[in-house]
This record gives sequence, C-alpha cells and structure tokens, in this order.
Amino acid sequence: MSTDPSGVITITTDFGHKGPFAAVMKGVILNRFPAARIVDLTHEIPAQWPPEAGFWVSRSYRYFPPGTVHVAIVDPGVGTERDILLVDHDQHIFMAPDNGLLACLLDKSIDAMVFKLGPDALARLDIPTPSMTFHGRDIFAPIAAEMAAGRTTPVAIGTPTSSWIPTWVDEPEICDGNVCGVIITVDSFGNLISNIDEKLISSMQVPVARIGGHEISMVATYGRAAPGDYLALINSFGVLEIAKAEGNAAESLGVDRGAPVTIASR
Amino acid sequence: MSTDPSGVITITTDFGHKGPFAAVMKGVILNRFPAARIVDLTHEIPAQWPPEAGFWVSRSYRYFPPGTVHVAIVDPGVGTERDILLVDHDQHIFMAPDNGLLACLLDKSIDAMVFKLGPDALARLDIPTPSMTFHGRDIFAPIAAEMAAGRTTPVAIGTPTSSWIPTWVDEPEICDGNVCGVIITVDSFGNLISNIDEKLISSMQVPVARIGGHEISMVATYGRAAPGDYLALINSFGVLEIAKAEGNAAESLGVDRGAPVTIASR
Amino acid sequence: MSTDPSGVITITTDFGHKGPFAAVMKGVILNRFPAARIVDLTHEIPAQWPPEAGFWVSRSYRYFPPGTVHVAIVDPGVGTERDILLVDHDQHIFMAPDNGLLACLLDKSIDAMVFKLGPDALARLDIPTPSMTFHGRDIFAPIAAEMAAGRTTPVAIGTPTSSWIPTWVDEPEICDGNVCGVIITVDSFGNLISNIDEKLISSMQVPVARIGGHEISMVATYGRAAPGDYLALINSFGVLEIAKAEGNAAESLGVDRGAPVTIASR
Repeated sequence: MSTDPSGVITITTDFGHKGPFAAVMKGVILNRFPAARIVDLTHEIPAQWPPEAGFWVSRSYRYFPPGTVHVAIVDPGVGTERDILLVDHDQHIFMAPDNGLLACLLDKSIDAMVFKLGPDALARLDIPTPSMTFHGRDIFAPIAAEMAAGRTTPVAIGTPTSSWIPTWVDEPEICDGNVCGVIITVDSFGNLISNIDEKLISSMQVPVARIGGHEISMVATYGRAAPGDYLALINSFGVLEIAKAEGNAAESLGVDRGAPVTIASR
Repeated sequence: MSTDPSGVITITTDFGHKGPFAAVMKGVILNRFPAARIVDLTHEIPAQWPPEAGFWVSRSYRYFPPGTVHVAIVDPGVGTERDILLVDHDQHIFMAPDNGLLACLLDKSIDAMVFKLGPDALARLDIPTPSMTFHGRDIFAPIAAEMAAGRTTPVAIGTPTSSWIPTWVDEPEICDGNVCGVIITVDSFGNLISNIDEKLISSMQVPVARIGGHEISMVATYGRAAPGDYLALINSFGVLEIAKAEGNAAESLGVDRGAPVTIASR
Repeated sequence: MSTDPSGVITITTDFGHKGPFAAVMKGVILNRFPAARIVDLTHEIPAQWPPEAGFWVSRSYRYFPPGTVHVAIVDPGVGTERDILLVDHDQHIFMAPDNGLLACLLDKSIDAMVFKLGPDALARLDIPTPSMTFHGRDIFAPIAAEMAAGRTTPVAIGTPTSSWIPTWVDEPEICDGNVCGVIITVDSFGNLISNIDEKLISSMQVPVARIGGHEISMVATYGRAAPGDYLALINSFGVLEIAKAEGNAAESLGVDRGAPVTIASR
C-alpha cells in the first residue's frame, strides 16, 4: 500500500445485533491495537449472502481515510477449505472470505493486488489456533489489527493470486439496447438500490426504469416527485435507485432484493 | 460557544442499520478529524419524521460533554431548497435540516444563537460539490468534523436568523384544567413516552393519566406497580411516561406514537 | 485487580436501538473519562431477562483486554431496594444489578471477589442523586468511567459479600446418564445456543443432541453438513449449538429460547 495505515478498521457482516459477535471481534482488535478506531459498516447483510456485502464495501470504502482496513465477513464456508483474500486497492486494504464477496470490486479494478492468506500467517503473527466456526474473531480480527497497526501487510502474509471465486450476481448487461440489472439491496426506507452504475446509462437521452410492471422517470432528488409518485435517480453511491416519494417503494411495488430492473431510452 | 470543543460528535438519523449510511458519515468525519469520538444517538427515528429526532436530541444533549456537536438528519427535503440550521445553545452545537426538527429545542430556549448555513460555507471549508440525495455524508459530516476539531464555528459559516420551520407536533396545552399532550415515541419495552414535561404537572396534587380509555395512577418507578398493572411516571428524561409493569404498554393498550394523553388532577 | 485498567468499557443491555438510552450512558462516560473506548456488546437482550445478558458477558469478556470494565444492565427492579454488584474476576471488572444476571459467572468462579456497591459511593465520586428509573445512566455509567480511568476500584467503593441473587436458569444436569440443558439464546441466523459447556460432554464417545423431537449428530463446523440438514456442534464460545446448514434451525424446528435440549451418548 502506497500510504500509511490510518488506524481505522471497518467491519461488515451478516451477524445482526443479537449477541456479542461483532463486539468480540472489536475486543480482539483492541487487545492487539489499542489505538484502533473501529467503524461498523453494517451488520445487517442478509444471512449468508456475500454479494450485498461486496456491493456496499466497494461503494463505501472511498469515504474512509486512505490506509483503512475493510473486513467483510459473510462466510457460509467457515471452517471448510475456502481461502481468505487480502486485497490492496486504491490505497485501501480489504479482507474477506474467497466466496465471491469481493469479486465485484476485483472485476472492475485494473491494479488491485490480490493475495490468498498464507498457511504460516497465523503462526508468524502469534495467532492461536482458530475455532472452526468463527474466523471473524479468530483470524480476521487479529490480522486486521496487525495491518491497521502497520505491523504487517497483505504482501508479507499472502500469496499473490489472479483467481478468485466469481460473484453470485451477474453484472448488468446490454440487452436490445437497454441496460438490464438487478436490485442488489433495499434500504430501510424501502428504496430499491440496483447494481446499475451511472456510467452505463449516461449516454441515454431520456432514460426510464422498468420494474414490477411500472415505467418510472428519472429525477434529480426525492423531493422533485409528488408525494406518492415513484421516481428513479442516480443515488449518492452512483447507482440507479427506485424510490417512492414519502413512501416505501419496495412495499408498494411488491418487489425485493434480486428483482430485475431495466433501463430503456424513451 | 463559550467552551472549547469536546471532540465528541453525536449522530441521530432515520437511516436504520441496513446499509452503510451512518458509517460513511463516520468515514468522512475521521478523514477530516482523526481524533473525533463519534456516538450514535439513535438511527431508528421513524422514517422521515423529524419531531422524534428533535425530541431525543433536546432531551439527551446535556449528558454529553460541553462542546459536543450534535448532528440530526431526518431530511425528506434533501436536495431541494430547504435550509440547514446551525445552533449554539447551552454550550453545545446542533446541526439539522430546517424542517421543524430543532423547533422543540429552539422554542424553549431564550438564548440560543441560530444560524442558517451560508452559501459559501462549502467552498471555504474545501468541501466538494455535494450529491443531491445524501447531505448527511456530503455536508453535515464534514462541517461537524470541522466544528468538532475547533476549526470553524456556526457564527463563522452561518447567517444569523430568528425564524425557522415550526415543529410538526403541538406542544402540550392546558384544556379544561387538564394537560393535553401526545405520545412522541415508544421505546423498545413498549413504554409510551409523551411530550409532557414534569413542570406542567408539578402543581397537581394527585395527577392521573388518561390514555386509550384507561385512567392510570402515578408512581415513582416501574417496580412500584404489581406485575401487569399500568403505571405512569416522570421518566429519567423529565417527561410523563406510561408503562406496564413487566409488560408492554403499547401492545396492551393498543396505542402508538401520536396518541393523545391527558393528565388530570383527581 | 492485578492489572491496570485497559480504558475499555463494554455495555450489555436490553435497551434495543430505538431511543438514546445507550448513547446517553456513553455521554456520561465521556464526560468523566474522555479517553474511554466503549464497545457495545449487545443491546438486544430480551426485555428484562437477565440470564442471557449474564451468559454473553461470561462467555465474551475474555476476548477483551485485561483490565476491561463490563457493565450489564437488564434491570426490572431499578429504583427498588435491589443491590448493585461489583466483581473482580480473572483480571476483568463486572458491574450489574444483583438480580441473577452475574450468577452464572460467579457460581463457576473460585476466586471472584464480589462486592455490593456501598451507600456512600455516589457521594464519594461526586455523582448526583440518580433518577429512579435509569441507573444505567446515573449510577453504572459514571462508576464504570471512574473504574476504567483507574480512579476507583470495586474494593474501594464496595462491601465484600458472598451472597447474591441466584440465576433464573438452571445449570445443565446429568439425568439418566444424559446431559439436560436449555437453549439460552437464538442468534440472528436462527442457530440455537445452549448452556451446555463442552466439558460436560467431552467424555461421550458419540454424543447426539435431542431437541424438538429430532436427534441430531455432532459435526465440526456448519459446512460439514449437507444444505438443509440439522447439525450440532460445539460453537466458538464453547457451548453446544444446534444449527441447520444454510437454514434457520429455530424456525424449522419450531423451538425458541428456553427449550430443553438433551445430549445422549449413542
């Protein structure tokens, strides 16, 4: 990494807020690196669904200081033979199970340096034998602490690789001149957030979104539609979003994560 | 502000815990002010309902160190012409959209200094052009960081004002010798928290609360009622609260946020 | 305590995330001890059910730095005559209402030093008269801050005691050669977490779990069962857990917190 560690660590999981699962990761981090500043990105990724974690990490990391370590743990294969990826990209460090979680970031990067955690990394960092079921606490947390403290790096403890498990969600495609993507997540307002980047529709003169049997016009912000109207916009993370002004689009349209959405030029 | 910044920033929103919305605000803050200590007041304000945010901020701020910056973002008008308020009150700084959120604080204050964010504030603080839809991240967070770091103040970046959007919830009134208020929020125990300040009923000899067809007596604490009994008390934030001993008053009474509650003297 | 304070404080409550209840505790702590590093263990303990709080605190504390102060507040008796316990155990400090919450920790310890908060502690630490209903903010938070800052200790402000309110949940028993315990909590994946420590079944050749009419075999980790199959394992906190591979055991089995679970040797 061409920059010094910021001392900041973000954590993204599907643990929810019941139980002390994220908390004990923080305890392990503070044990090794008392000055760490830890930010919960979210713990409400749908259970065992890596793509949403990767989507949010790849869209959020740039708002954190350069030199931040981003740990993402949605890990149905914990304790089996799956690898752990370490990535050095755009002055940030990323760490996640190799299960497709980081694919959406890696597939778009031309200069990411990607490593698989080496077999002797735990011994070299004095990390005790991990449990079979909670690598977030026993592997990810101590290694994130060591990297955030500037005492190790992906290149020091990883083996370079150019292959990784592909993403579980296809990237948007061009079909019949339209852009076809999917709803990758729904926020707490019921706004439907797609995986369609603004670059894909920037050449369209009058783009309209088709979803759930509706055709929805683009506006600049929520308040530009009449209360109760559907609207489409490029949201603050640079992707197409479907909303209902002063309402809940997911409930009203009856669509959810995974729904197809098409952008056509009228 | 007559006191030095504490370095503490509180954040109150209706973002919920799905997605990285509060987290990226923290990233932006840590980028500008690495020593910031950030406390989530709550992110579970009902979607796009400013009054509860203002209620909790106005009842909670005094428990934080003098010199703390309190940011509250419930912002249905984001990206439209609505103003942003900066308030210097009682040795604390407050920042929120001008949509009624802070009115309950300002209407009761005799010495609050109130400002509207000036048009050149972003340029002067080197804040990039904000998105149309997420001012929490793009305007509130960087300005809060600059104020918490002691590098700017409301007076330096705001225009003094004595007008603001009024509150969405009427203050309690005296009607027929009784005090008539509303339930402003329900906590996770199902306790019904009203907007009736203890001062309004301190002169009553034997106050009783009327809500949902029940007449409920005042006690000093939850454990002073028999399990299953309703009780009314002045809670730890100085307002009237209706509870059910070892139970859930909201569910049992079938009332919710917005319900009328009357205090009579028996 | 034979070690210096770490400056870390953990907080465990049943407050949920609606409202500023945990936040104002943090404000009070930061007022007295600005360098405190505060970790939320969980705020989603079932309302007014101390045993789960005690279970998680006793299973989690060892992942935090020695010298950490652990505050747990599930407190149906707040404002009545119930005592407050201060415990010095295994280089950590614990503080909770004396209502059975800490009994599972104390009953297993041979060297815990247990104190009841003394009547003059508040005056000696310049803590104002507390409210009747929120001792978390008014008593626990300021005392935790003083202990974490190294300015007081349990022995300095407490009276030694060897009695405390017993736990609400029986420890596992041997019945007919089997081990009989209960489900103490359910995590956000629907995994059923029991109070049966691995030591109790370590001598069994082929242990099987019986719950909800099913007999379930032990495996080493989640990924070792076929998708949809039930599995039992010793989880990362050292207790027996029932899960469903890539599914939700609680929903599928129709069992919840409090359900009996038996381990037999096949």
